[in-house]
Amino acid sequence: MANFQVNILGCGSATPSTRHMPACQVIDFRDRLFMIDCGEGAQLQMMKQRLKFSRLSHIFISHLHGDHFLGLPGLLSTLALHEKGGSLTIHTFTEGARILSEIMAGFCRETSFEIKYNIITPKRAVIFEDHALTVETFPLYHRVPCVGFKFSEKPKARHLRGDMIKFYNIPVCRLEDIRRGADYVMPDGTVIANARLTTDPDPSVSYAYCSDTMYNPAVADDVRGVDVLYHESTYADNFAEKAAPRGHSTAREAARIAKAAGVGKLILGHYSKAYDSDEPFAREASEEFPNVIAATEGMKIDLL
Amino acid sequence: MANFQVNILGCGSATPSTRHMPACQVIDFRDRLFMIDCGEGAQLQMMKQRLKFSRLSHIFISHLHGDHFLGLPGLLSTLALHEKGGSLTIHTFTEGARILSEIMAGFCRETSFEIKYNIITPKRAVIFEDHALTVETFPLYHRVPCVGFKFSEKPKARHLRGDMIKFYNIPVCRLEDIRRGADYVMPDGTVIANARLTTDPDPSVSYAYCSDTMYNPAVADDVRGVDVLYHESTYADNFAEKAAPRGHSTAREAARIAKAAGVGKLILGHYSKAYDSDEPFAREASEEFPNVIAATEGMKIDLL
Repeated sequence: MANFQVNILGCGSATPSTRHMPACQVIDFRDRLFMIDCGEGAQLQMMKQRLKFSRLSHIFISHLHGDHFLGLPGLLSTLALHEKGGSLTIHTFTEGARILSEIMAGFCRETSFEIKYNIITPKRAVIFEDHALTVETFPLYHRVPCVGFKFSEKPKARHLRGDMIKFYNIPVCRLEDIRRGADYVMPDGTVIANARLTTDPDPSVSYAYCSDTMYNPAVADDVRGVDVLYHESTYADNFAEKAAPRGHSTAREAARIAKAAGVGKLILGHYSKAYDSDEPFAREASEEFPNVIAATEGMKIDLL
Repeated sequence: MANFQVNILGCGSATPSTRHMPACQVIDFRDRLFMIDCGEGAQLQMMKQRLKFSRLSHIFISHLHGDHFLGLPGLLSTLALHEKGGSLTIHTFTEGARILSEIMAGFCRETSFEIKYNIITPKRAVIFEDHALTVETFPLYHRVPCVGFKFSEKPKARHLRGDMIKFYNIPVCRLEDIRRGADYVMPDGTVIANARLTTDPDPSVSYAYCSDTMYNPAVADDVRGVDVLYHESTYADNFAEKAAPRGHSTAREAARIAKAAGVGKLILGHYSKAYDSDEPFAREASEEFPNVIAATEGMKIDLL
């Protein structure tokens, strides 16, 4: 269990290869796992990376191409065999929910857990929210409707200053409100400003996932300031002319988005199988933006 | 390209594990590849085992459980991206054809090859035949309708005796008929019996695949005398009581079928993920039948 960790399960593109698996990531956020895209073989990658099926609670599908979706039927069948309980929410377009329901009706009529569908659309919207995390969609620019996902930690509680809490003799029952920013009113009516009682909270971190998109500066607005950005880089410079017509980006273009958005770190992936090495992607992106990682299966990136 | 070779792509059972992939085999028969069952990850196993997509011509699905079927959508999508031409025939039950058509309509609307469906039923029938090979179905005994497949080489041409062909001065245009068993009539009307002109052909070999079945002696009748039999062995003796209720067999039961059917060699597979080692399967089966192989991914068994 991690605080906020991105696990790379697959970072290849449409055709799997012996080097890379199709698209899949798992965000390990405290007690739960959030999967983003689910290419064929995702279930096996979860096993290999020791990500427990029982902790999987949400799956987010960016678009309805096979390399981002076709691991779902097998994964759900296996979850049923593993007797996972509770519920699993699948965030996908209407058509994805329809096809998956059809497949499940044929292959996996009984599950030990409830499958919920949350229908998403290709626009900016909050699609999941709890006490600690918000997940938003934003539009991407591919050959079919496609969204990116932004995972943002909510603001955290402020740190109490033990010395001041003691000095003002503040009762325990008030501490939770003070952590959330409240001032303290003394029995005599004197107001002690929160700033005297607390220090700033730990920073909240954020992660954005942009899979399958042509270069579009509008993306930078939607991912502005995130700590870590994953942006597809299907091609390097040598095939740059193929990128836009196919709804994809080069590594250099991904880096330009990272720079324009002022993100902390850029992760590259969704490599075309035309490449024998990931080296050109990282090298060319680094010429535009300093903090670049080329994803590979099994990689874990801790945001906290 | 092989003459008649069984390639093991997956020999695990319902849940894939880090040890075994779900069910898939490829028969490499002269110029073509015939796939039997298509568990998730089959396309990647084909790549790893260097079995060329372009040579794949027929896929036979034994029954509609996910671990025998869910590799199909990804495989077909990839074949389309690889611009495979010609046609691909999928032999499956009505429901399988319906679901696959539905998935393909959602994920892979355009293919560069024609997908043909041959609807099979769970009974004994010839479902494919050409000049060199016959494929038959026969019933298996699982929780859902299920068939085995028997691949039989047709009788081959007889060998010409060069000395006799020369002695009787037989023209080249008659040799093909003589290879097929015809007598030769001399210009003076004398009949030379084929037996004087030829020797026996090479033996024709056969292979039977029995996936997902409880032990049933009737199976031995359907696979009688095959050179190589693959028979599922989900369990070893220690879980024997689980086998029949789940529609599966033990390795020992598989060996009893092999013995009763008088086959040449037995291949075991479809191992439950409950086992850390394949050793008990081969050991227990060997106590009943001498010539046993425990399948593993990447294994190639030459019948010719």
